[in-house]
Amino acid sequence: MITAHVKTKLIEIVGRENYDDSEADRLVYSYDATPQFQSLPDGVISPDNAKQVSDIVKVCNEHNIPIIPRGSGTNLCAGTCPTEGGLVLLFRHMNRILEIDEENLTVTVQPGVITLDMINEVEAKGLFYPPDPSSMKISTIGGNINENSGGLRGLKYGVTRDYVIALEIVLANGDIICTGGKLAKDVAGYDLTRLFVGSEGTLGIITEATLKLIPMPETKKTMLALYQDIDAAARSVSNIIANKIIPTTLEFLDQPTLQVVEDFAQIGLPTNVQAVLLIEQDGPEQVVERDMQRIAELCMLEQAVSVEVAQSEEHAMALRTARRAALSALARLKPTTILEDATVPRSEIAKMVRSINEIAVKYDVNICTFGHAGDGNLHPTCPTDSRNHDEIERVEKAFAEIFEKAVELGGTITGEHGVGVMKAPYLELKLGEQGIAAMRSIKAAFDPNNIMNPGKVFAKESRKRVVVTR
Amino acid sequence: MITAHVKTKLIEIVGRENYDDSEADRLVYSYDATPQFQSLPDGVISPDNAKQVSDIVKVCNEHNIPIIPRGSGTNLCAGTCPTEGGLVLLFRHMNRILEIDEENLTVTVQPGVITLDMINEVEAKGLFYPPDPSSMKISTIGGNINENSGGLRGLKYGVTRDYVIALEIVLANGDIICTGGKLAKDVAGYDLTRLFVGSEGTLGIITEATLKLIPMPETKKTMLALYQDIDAAARSVSNIIANKIIPTTLEFLDQPTLQVVEDFAQIGLPTNVQAVLLIEQDGPEQVVERDMQRIAELCMLEQAVSVEVAQSEEHAMALRTARRAALSALARLKPTTILEDATVPRSEIAKMVRSINEIAVKYDVNICTFGHAGDGNLHPTCPTDSRNHDEIERVEKAFAEIFEKAVELGGTITGEHGVGVMKAPYLELKLGEQGIAAMRSIKAAFDPNNIMNPGKVFAKESRKRVVVTR
Repeated sequence: MITAHVKTKLIEIVGRENYDDSEADRLVYSYDATPQFQSLPDGVISPDNAKQVSDIVKVCNEHNIPIIPRGSGTNLCAGTCPTEGGLVLLFRHMNRILEIDEENLTVTVQPGVITLDMINEVEAKGLFYPPDPSSMKISTIGGNINENSGGLRGLKYGVTRDYVIALEIVLANGDIICTGGKLAKDVAGYDLTRLFVGSEGTLGIITEATLKLIPMPETKKTMLALYQDIDAAARSVSNIIANKIIPTTLEFLDQPTLQVVEDFAQIGLPTNVQAVLLIEQDGPEQVVERDMQRIAELCMLEQAVSVEVAQSEEHAMALRTARRAALSALARLKPTTILEDATVPRSEIAKMVRSINEIAVKYDVNICTFGHAGDGNLHPTCPTDSRNHDEIERVEKAFAEIFEKAVELGGTITGEHGVGVMKAPYLELKLGEQGIAAMRSIKAAFDPNNIMNPGKVFAKESRKRVVVTR
Repeated sequence: MITAHVKTKLIEIVGRENYDDSEADRLVYSYDATPQFQSLPDGVISPDNAKQVSDIVKVCNEHNIPIIPRGSGTNLCAGTCPTEGGLVLLFRHMNRILEIDEENLTVTVQPGVITLDMINEVEAKGLFYPPDPSSMKISTIGGNINENSGGLRGLKYGVTRDYVIALEIVLANGDIICTGGKLAKDVAGYDLTRLFVGSEGTLGIITEATLKLIPMPETKKTMLALYQDIDAAARSVSNIIANKIIPTTLEFLDQPTLQVVEDFAQIGLPTNVQAVLLIEQDGPEQVVERDMQRIAELCMLEQAVSVEVAQSEEHAMALRTARRAALSALARLKPTTILEDATVPRSEIAKMVRSINEIAVKYDVNICTFGHAGDGNLHPTCPTDSRNHDEIERVEKAFAEIFEKAVELGGTITGEHGVGVMKAPYLELKLGEQGIAAMRSIKAAFDPNNIMNPGKVFAKESRKRVVVTR
């Protein structure tokens, strides 16, 4: 609850035009990209700088008001849904690229910068920021950092955490701290930089970040390998890596996904095969050429029906764009789309895909699977309808079993989407009671009044079923 | 103090042969590679497995006994000096490579494995573990993880933290937790894996680790560039990176260092130049060839006196080995050798080297400088004599000023050696009071009784001068 007194204080900090508690605005920020979660915040605030963020946080800490930092709300774990009310904090005034440092190969940004805008700016200077979440056209860097976003190039280049080298953070007590630096090496104390990446706004509010860049790869090639046997596709993934080739991208799409993506994108994707691998390699031309040839051989050895290299950058771009559109395409099928990201060691992909299909049959639900196969990061996706309570219950049971299977295979409940509210009930599967206790102790140390995005990461109680919060 | 009662309990856990509190053994483990620090432990214990470690920790936690996990004691920050007494915990029975997984490109080890032994094992399978601290012939992986060790290949490949993907950890309450997995992506909660890397044994005891491997680079070339002008050498470093070439290794040695290294190694290093860059590139042959040519051009543009490519792997190995021997060589000059690792953004290397030389003159001390120039990670080293109190005081003042300068240039007080006791008084320079408070809150959360390597990282009080603990 935000009282008139607190509201006055907040308006004093940001100005009347940057505080909104109208019904309309509260409704707009009551949900994010995650289906089945909605909850009204008490207000929406748009600070201009770290000092203002610090002042806001102090007020909230004093009055026990939840703060939910929010970029574009594209996350898929209900990480920015204000499930306990409070203040949604927007970065629309903190959205500048502050510096591209070509000598140290870094970019310094405010959290509200759109990911693709930043990528375009650095690429214009011949530099490369590899993390490329599918949402990058609209997602913000701040959101990417809070969720430790992955993407299609993660196999070779890693994820957001691997590129964050310095942060400015406002802690729950209002302290503004700076971690890291433009430094390749820094062991001055604990690595708070990486601890905050992926902490989902539960430990503090990131107000500035310096990201590592690398030189732009010289060339890139894109290939599609088609399979009538899902297992063979999965085995190809393991074989390519085991042959010591690390492609930039190694994506998997099963037949149902292919069908809906083609219906949506209409770029001539084959829909009469059981699975497709979308493979990309980048680097110096001769290396790319050689790797692609070897990859093609390995795919053929595993009974690929055909292997086809994109003949132009336009065609390659169309393939990548189609892959990135998979969620949007699947989302057209039914009113509700539940997309998960169970992840396994890449040697276990074939087993995991098989298990997903068996589980779908067992619970009589429709699950399409695609994802970053090279990372073992799969996206089993269920087009469903949240109004159909019977089906939703079966869907939830199916996903619970998928998470259990992933952990059993040495994997995790979430590879890149985060825990948020959505996956909190399953966290214990991966970490055990003692692992969660360790993480909770960090949360309590940084945020004793639990104002920083409360209700996320840690479940109120251990339970297996997702609880729909309407 | 370990009472007879506690001693009995400890012996019950590990057996009589694995507990030693003889004067001789306590003396052996009273110091590490760091000059000027010595303090007797109360006992030395050698557990066999995580369960035993957990039992030991529970006893220590109950009786408030410090535990100092120790590999080979090669650290340079007094990180394994038992400054508050207690129990030195050795990993001599936990020194096995448990698995090399060629499908997932990982190696799983116990903490007591010698770094180079593990590197040799994985290289025999065509795989590559890049972190290569100069001490790797005797250092352990457990020590490397606790200190987040760097090395000569850090510029291109990163440091230990970038390769640790899963840990088994015994916490101060005796809980055994497992973090991460054989996973390229995992966002299930806070990143405890990377938080523990570099935490210097102050948060828990690492009992097993899974490390990421990459395919072995196909070829490698080594080059020496000679300069009569230190600034020109430093500018070459910046220019190479700004030209979007990331060499594997980019090491700097000044004339005094060159002289002692050549006296020691006798491999024909030039000693009549002011500075040398040792440059290596690895990868596919054509790429290496092209990069080396471009690097040579860039060095010549900056007035290098000459640029010479090693003509054989033997010669290249001799150059690398000589560089790795720099500390040993410098250590022969005087009874005491103080080696630091102030680190700056690589664009600031020229300024930093100049400042170090000015500071040496100002305090009338002899400082040789070498280090990982490509990382901005310099090792200003002072051959001195700890019995000469007047000189030692000047040395300490000089290093304090070097740390201040590094931080002023956007750098850090330690790039790869860790804080330990040695650098604890300077940590506030880098982090500020609020940054230290944030880190202290993590320490308190994980180790409320302060039994885990107490006295390290955090200074008892803020002060500038190094306090010699004898």
